[in-house]
Amino acid sequence: MWPGIALSLEIEEVLYSNKSKFQQIDLYQTRNHGKMLVLDGIIQLTQSDEFAYQEMLAHVPLFAHPNPENVLVIGGGDGGVLREIARHACVKTIDFCEIDEEVIKVSKEFLPDMACGFDDPRVRVHIGDGNAYLREQKNKYDVIIVDSSDPIGPGEALFERPFYENLKAALRQNGIIATQGESFFMHKECVANLVKITKELFEVQAYSYILVPTYPGGNIGICLGSLGPQLKTPCRTMSDAIQKQLNYYTPKIHEASFVLPYFAQKMFETL
Amino acid sequence: MWPGIALSLEIEEVLYSNKSKFQQIDLYQTRNHGKMLVLDGIIQLTQSDEFAYQEMLAHVPLFAHPNPENVLVIGGGDGGVLREIARHACVKTIDFCEIDEEVIKVSKEFLPDMACGFDDPRVRVHIGDGNAYLREQKNKYDVIIVDSSDPIGPGEALFERPFYENLKAALRQNGIIATQGESFFMHKECVANLVKITKELFEVQAYSYILVPTYPGGNIGICLGSLGPQLKTPCRTMSDAIQKQLNYYTPKIHEASFVLPYFAQKMFETL
Repeated sequence: MWPGIALSLEIEEVLYSNKSKFQQIDLYQTRNHGKMLVLDGIIQLTQSDEFAYQEMLAHVPLFAHPNPENVLVIGGGDGGVLREIARHACVKTIDFCEIDEEVIKVSKEFLPDMACGFDDPRVRVHIGDGNAYLREQKNKYDVIIVDSSDPIGPGEALFERPFYENLKAALRQNGIIATQGESFFMHKECVANLVKITKELFEVQAYSYILVPTYPGGNIGICLGSLGPQLKTPCRTMSDAIQKQLNYYTPKIHEASFVLPYFAQKMFETL
Repeated sequence: MWPGIALSLEIEEVLYSNKSKFQQIDLYQTRNHGKMLVLDGIIQLTQSDEFAYQEMLAHVPLFAHPNPENVLVIGGGDGGVLREIARHACVKTIDFCEIDEEVIKVSKEFLPDMACGFDDPRVRVHIGDGNAYLREQKNKYDVIIVDSSDPIGPGEALFERPFYENLKAALRQNGIIATQGESFFMHKECVANLVKITKELFEVQAYSYILVPTYPGGNIGICLGSLGPQLKTPCRTMSDAIQKQLNYYTPKIHEASFVLPYFAQKMFETL
């Protein structure tokens, strides 16, 4: 995924290492970045900066929607995105579909600050393939968040057009999708493909980015599509009580995250 | 500078390696990121993303100033910032002070796309210590840009208060400084110190950030201080002809680059 560039974190202890039915799962204690979850050798998160990714992937689509009631999350067995969604009182149900039960177990044991997302009574856990689950859901969700790993291994199908067609069909009126969108600096072709698919399928499309220092290149994007609402400005106000619980997201960061460097803006305009 | 985290780039060839009077200078051909300049073992730039840093460090202060005529650049022997400044027709003189002549020579030989900045007839090169040069300059510059390396080695003094006092004294009315400001994610104490100094010394202060994938953590900041003009919005329009020459800076990115993640916003507010 990152030819010619590598990121290394100093490790103090291997806390867990096991091959599940789907992938190699490793959990490390790093020297300076808290605990780190690694799947098939790729860093998924560290405790030092997971807040940036989880907050943005959850709050950007949720605050762009006028009244999100039914939410679906595909992937993200660590529970961090669930933790963020649970801050929204208007949300009534949170369906959660993860292919690898082992990731949830490891997170509950070693990452309780993230796996606390599973404690919310609105969360219903479905273990299985996200794409297969999605095909059974029609006209059901206000917001769907895809917290996938990269397009190699079990997450591959989640970067292809049929999956995006299923996402669209599973949305209710005014629904919004938000998917892990890789980096426009590091994965130009992959990002261009995601943007092209969402432009073709959705009336409103936009791409947001996040600083995540422990991902190679230090940034990752969110690919968004909407059946109605504009995406680039929050359409609900956030209470001070919620803001105080956050570390990255603000209404202003929501807007700024859609302002792209010129080369990325030009690349997306031509798609 | 980056405890517990390391960035590695795959190298195809060592093009230059020599210890100058001040530091170890290495120039590599990387596999996927073009040529790379390394000083004392720290990545200074790669050809794949140098545009992000050079454009923002030059154009953010220059477009925040209503009429920059006399500009000083301290450090940045590669010439990239000079290349960007030279795009501004209103600029009449560009003084340039670099401590290590060897960096200029190496850049002229191996990085002609950056060192072309030295070709502009408005550029006057001064070889010597930036702080010493600055002490002789009073009430002279509209914009001063400090393109320093990190606060270890020859750049150390450029992160301390006396240097910032000298910067202020060298400015004309309405002058603006912009200094390499490290990363609020990776170097919280260093950044907090720079922001505190500029807040104490300047009427207007702000902090901007840039995505630079080949720096550890993938982002770097610009610390700005102004004797008058607001910093967060451009106060001059940019011609289409200039915009087309750029890859990162746009008037909208200028504004968005000052919108900080909540933890950084809170950290700066308390200083």
